[in-house]
Amino acid sequence: MDNRISFSSDYTKGAHPQILKRLTETNFERIDGYGTDEYCKSAADKIKKVCGCPDGEVFFLVGGTQTNQTIIDMLLQPYEGIVAAETGHIAAHEAGAIEHAGHKVLTVPAHGEEKDTENYGSDVGKISAEDVDKLISTFYGDANHEHMVFPGAVYISHPTEYGTLYTKKELENISGVCKKYNIPLFIDGARLGYGLMSKRTDVTIEDIAKYADVFYIGGTKVGALFGEAVVFTKGVTTKHPIPVIKHHGALLAKGWLLGLQFDTLFTDNLYFEISKKAIEAAELLKEGLKSKGYKIFLDSPTNQQFVVVSNDKLEELSKNVRFGFWEKYDDDHTVIRFATDWATEKADVEKLLNYL
Amino acid sequence: MDNRISFSSDYTKGAHPQILKRLTETNFERIDGYGTDEYCKSAADKIKKVCGCPDGEVFFLVGGTQTNQTIIDMLLQPYEGIVAAETGHIAAHEAGAIEHAGHKVLTVPAHGEEKDTENYGSDVGKISAEDVDKLISTFYGDANHEHMVFPGAVYISHPTEYGTLYTKKELENISGVCKKYNIPLFIDGARLGYGLMSKRTDVTIEDIAKYADVFYIGGTKVGALFGEAVVFTKGVTTKHPIPVIKHHGALLAKGWLLGLQFDTLFTDNLYFEISKKAIEAAELLKEGLKSKGYKIFLDSPTNQQFVVVSNDKLEELSKNVRFGFWEKYDDDHTVIRFATDWATEKADVEKLLNYL
Amino acid sequence: MDNRISFSSDYTKGAHPQILKRLTETNFERIDGYGTDEYCKSAADKIKKVCGCPDGEVFFLVGGTQTNQTIIDMLLQPYEGIVAAETGHIAAHEAGAIEHAGHKVLTVPAHGEEKDTENYGSDVGKISAEDVDKLISTFYGDANHEHMVFPGAVYISHPTEYGTLYTKKELENISGVCKKYNIPLFIDGARLGYGLMSKRTDVTIEDIAKYADVFYIGGTKVGALFGEAVVFTKGVTTKHPIPVIKHHGALLAKGWLLGLQFDTLFTDNLYFEISKKAIEAAELLKEGLKSKGYKIFLDSPTNQQFVVVSNDKLEELSKNVRFGFWEKYDDDHTVIRFATDWATEKADVEKLLNYL
Amino acid sequence: MDNRISFSSDYTKGAHPQILKRLTETNFERIDGYGTDEYCKSAADKIKKVCGCPDGEVFFLVGGTQTNQTIIDMLLQPYEGIVAAETGHIAAHEAGAIEHAGHKVLTVPAHGEEKDTENYGSDVGKISAEDVDKLISTFYGDANHEHMVFPGAVYISHPTEYGTLYTKKELENISGVCKKYNIPLFIDGARLGYGLMSKRTDVTIEDIAKYADVFYIGGTKVGALFGEAVVFTKGVTTKHPIPVIKHHGALLAKGWLLGLQFDTLFTDNLYFEISKKAIEAAELLKEGLKSKGYKIFLDSPTNQQFVVVSNDKLEELSKNVRFGFWEKYDDDHTVIRFATDWATEKADVEKLLNYL
Repeated sequence: MDNRISFSSDYTKGAHPQILKRLTETNFERIDGYGTDEYCKSAADKIKKVCGCPDGEVFFLVGGTQTNQTIIDMLLQPYEGIVAAETGHIAAHEAGAIEHAGHKVLTVPAHGEEKDTENYGSDVGKISAEDVDKLISTFYGDANHEHMVFPGAVYISHPTEYGTLYTKKELENISGVCKKYNIPLFIDGARLGYGLMSKRTDVTIEDIAKYADVFYIGGTKVGALFGEAVVFTKGVTTKHPIPVIKHHGALLAKGWLLGLQFDTLFTDNLYFEISKKAIEAAELLKEGLKSKGYKIFLDSPTNQQFVVVSNDKLEELSKNVRFGFWEKYDDDHTVIRFATDWATEKADVEKLLNYL
Repeated sequence: MDNRISFSSDYTKGAHPQILKRLTETNFERIDGYGTDEYCKSAADKIKKVCGCPDGEVFFLVGGTQTNQTIIDMLLQPYEGIVAAETGHIAAHEAGAIEHAGHKVLTVPAHGEEKDTENYGSDVGKISAEDVDKLISTFYGDANHEHMVFPGAVYISHPTEYGTLYTKKELENISGVCKKYNIPLFIDGARLGYGLMSKRTDVTIEDIAKYADVFYIGGTKVGALFGEAVVFTKGVTTKHPIPVIKHHGALLAKGWLLGLQFDTLFTDNLYFEISKKAIEAAELLKEGLKSKGYKIFLDSPTNQQFVVVSNDKLEELSKNVRFGFWEKYDDDHTVIRFATDWATEKADVEKLLNYL
Repeated sequence: MDNRISFSSDYTKGAHPQILKRLTETNFERIDGYGTDEYCKSAADKIKKVCGCPDGEVFFLVGGTQTNQTIIDMLLQPYEGIVAAETGHIAAHEAGAIEHAGHKVLTVPAHGEEKDTENYGSDVGKISAEDVDKLISTFYGDANHEHMVFPGAVYISHPTEYGTLYTKKELENISGVCKKYNIPLFIDGARLGYGLMSKRTDVTIEDIAKYADVFYIGGTKVGALFGEAVVFTKGVTTKHPIPVIKHHGALLAKGWLLGLQFDTLFTDNLYFEISKKAIEAAELLKEGLKSKGYKIFLDSPTNQQFVVVSNDKLEELSKNVRFGFWEKYDDDHTVIRFATDWATEKADVEKLLNYL
Repeated sequence: MDNRISFSSDYTKGAHPQILKRLTETNFERIDGYGTDEYCKSAADKIKKVCGCPDGEVFFLVGGTQTNQTIIDMLLQPYEGIVAAETGHIAAHEAGAIEHAGHKVLTVPAHGEEKDTENYGSDVGKISAEDVDKLISTFYGDANHEHMVFPGAVYISHPTEYGTLYTKKELENISGVCKKYNIPLFIDGARLGYGLMSKRTDVTIEDIAKYADVFYIGGTKVGALFGEAVVFTKGVTTKHPIPVIKHHGALLAKGWLLGLQFDTLFTDNLYFEISKKAIEAAELLKEGLKSKGYKIFLDSPTNQQFVVVSNDKLEELSKNVRFGFWEKYDDDHTVIRFATDWATEKADVEKLLNYL
């Protein structure tokens, strides 16, 4: 067994103990399948309440790529594509699952307006309302656009794949462009908790629910064994979502396993508390890195920290620590990623800093 | 909460306690994702050993429809369809997931040779080698067959959707037809344990592995929280199965959750022991039904029991018991289904018999 | 070269000379592409006028399977299938093109009510309103229907694959079932002209347009080089049909080639006149067959005639005549098909009768 | 009717008169369907001979997007994408038909090595072997590449969408990269004739057949009524191409209409002669534009000529001439496109030059 301490990713551990406890307590109840049970209902109610969208509809799916593919296929007409950052998860790291479902990912450059980085962190991985507007208006301005792919929805991840965050104003602007063209905004919240609990954000879960037409609250990376809670903030427009979800391999027979987990996470603020813990560990780590003189690659305000290390250091470090290889920096240096999560203890961070 | 005793289905409870125990024990280990971990490897090794197929390859997916869709899409060329019983799960109850993946389900009548029912139970829901052979030979005999759907694989479920079982001879015959036309045989084992532990079967898991090119060992309905173990008995032919599995929403980030469950189920015969328990409960129930004079609708040798009740009885019963509505029998009678499972206790059956 | 006379099919010759003439006349005009030209507009106007549906929309596609696939994909939601006869072209002879587009073909038995055959010919290949109603009502009556394929539209061919015709009353009934469940009726008119000009029909093209939500007027088999005119009788509901048509390989760059052909066919009743000629040849053939004592396999009122011949006769005949092999009748006899078309001359029929 | 002279595109006229003549001559022959006829065989033989690939296989499809979608779907595994220029037709102007078939278009920058432009014209629209190699090697260098889209084939158009041409050396290099990674090279030859007959190319049709694994010879834009001849230079690897072609709406019932056209085009060098005529007209036009002081936007060596005009001129010109709007050049100028074709006469060019 690999005994190194691990900061390689935020989906390497099981679930918050409270979840295992409730799974054990309810193990021999006999519960109806396919999400028609009381736990799913209760979880949905709690989520709608905390999001401030009483008319929303909530579905519980199993994992991230599956959720992205299912939602996007529900949002789009067959002739439509989805606008996303060229570094967006759906564009780069889902094995072409969106195209497999028949839709093009229409990419815009992955950067933001490069403002406010002092207060809000880096803009890497973000897209700008201006670029989205330009892509859509160029499309409609082309006389041959019926022979092109219609921009049918906009996808952003919050936090992004680089751990960066949109500001409330930026979300408002992107949402404004979507409204202008009457297309929905979809926010991938696989790591939503870590975004909301960042010390450098002005965005609340109610803001997310306000600006997004659909978003999901990641469980797999934030305390659940597995599961993503999809919120259609104004209700779902697909007339029969169940068979569509089933087509995408996303309908869990024992749906209550998902409901129960999210019901637990949204009881007594648990989702937010454990997210906060990951942020505190990440901040501790960043401070430590800075004080040791490491070059921070990008100023992430969430649970993923990116740092430049020499290749010698990298080799040495990998004997005791698991981390993510991010990209080559120059011939002698490499960018690596440390991810904290809901289960990261202060002691783990201190141990890591000692190795550094 | 619904306090009636429940025989409505075999996926209404959580998992065998031993599984919850191991999930709890390993909860804070940091494990690699996407099925690349040691638990998946260990589970695969145990499964290949018990199946007697050392050259096989094992994948762990999440649920039944997802698994059927993924495997069938891996087996077939785009111009091929899958041969199945008209009552087969993929033909009737998967919301068109196979067609969504682009493939026609080519149906043959759902009945068997009607032999040996005394020893082996009813033939309802089974297909015959002769019918499969006829469908395929008719296809190739048609001069225009390039304008038709090629039969590219054969699907059977064992147990079938009616709880019935193929005999070893029948499996050999169907497998023989597949070999004759050089197409693979796929066995859906969503309830495989209940089939293997039937008191009226001559089929072992080694037989399944011998006759099938690919099959799966159902976990969702047989003691796991969720999960199906897919066994390609001679190795997988798809060059890159991971992206294909991902396309179908079937790649779990925390893949070890599946590996750990199947590792538990295939340690100390647990999978077979708990399946046997369900069979014993079902047999006890059937004897009780018979002795009370109920008409057995079809002689199922596994965990699903089908019985004819008067509509008055049905109404009365439903106050205390949850069961499956199967089909109308005549104007005054209905066929209902009772399913036992790995967690059904003798006492539950006795309570049910009292209500009957 | 094969010098036998040919009754093998109705798509073995080029186009009506008037069409070649107009293609030649307009050859050096410079015309806009993709169906935006004046010829398409003119043809659409003529078709809408003769059909009595001024609010309809007309598209010109290239071939039959392509047209069926495109229309059905436009009509259905992803979770819906199309109801059709088990012998329907889309169910049996399109290589699974409908399933390739993601939709199940939900089959009903292929026969009609077996009434009025004296006046209207055989019912073989037809479906009944009752069977359609039963399939749909059974679907909605199933508590688990969200896990099944929704019946989203009904497909019939007129004439059917057996050359038989629905009566006006039968069309009204099937249309009534569609209205009852609020789903569209699609009529495949690959051989529509031959149906409308039958001597034993009470159905006009206006009736077709009245009962169908969408239908097509076959050109490939009725005088055009190629092409099918699709009529959405109440307008198309797909917001952007062009990219959908393009996705299905059905958008011809030189769209005017289609418009020009249909403009010609719907000028001076040409489509109906040439269809009538085929019917007269078919009737002459049937009378001849009867008077020679041949057994008519089914009483087709259109251009396809099915007759039982001894296998000796079949072998002898095939030296001088090309015809369609239909099916084995018994060990000594075979059903063969003779198809007349817009170009069949009386002399051809007489020659054929001599060989018989 | 629009009486302006037209240089708007190369698919605005019918067919070379010799084709109409042969269609007329053969109109009443009775010919077998679906490409099984003698004309298709003859055309395929002539094409294989002129290409120097006796072991090749030839298919005749109807139009460009349809052909691209069908071939690419035949070449790729489900988890593979196709590498193409970001300005490639499949990336930009086919309404997402490739994604509709489930495959991502993996784009590389659209420019070449910018060498030899004096001899060979501009490099705009071309991709370089180096960029293709980099994309593929980066993919395989990524440890997570099983979660990304596999580069499964390379697509180039020759001429490109900008009328530019690859040199023999460039084709050899791109083909070399494909061989290195063992993936096929597909050349879109929608305007192939105009490329081969350019005065500034060292590429012959035998070179195309040597470097491509599959390519097509465009008919729609080069003298045919419609049709594209697909050449798999080493034979087709799809076991059953007919149903695959049918799935993509690309199987013409009267397949001989395509065979006959290509048989005509490849008799007595007709395809090359008429292509040459278009080139001569284009060269005459370019010389005229230059001598009148117009700024040539890019130095195209084929039938499409791109020129910068003032917006005033543009407005004036559009009263008498139809041309293609290409893109905005600056606030006062626009790039427009003039396309010559097989039917463009010297007199047409002179007339156009007068207006300029």
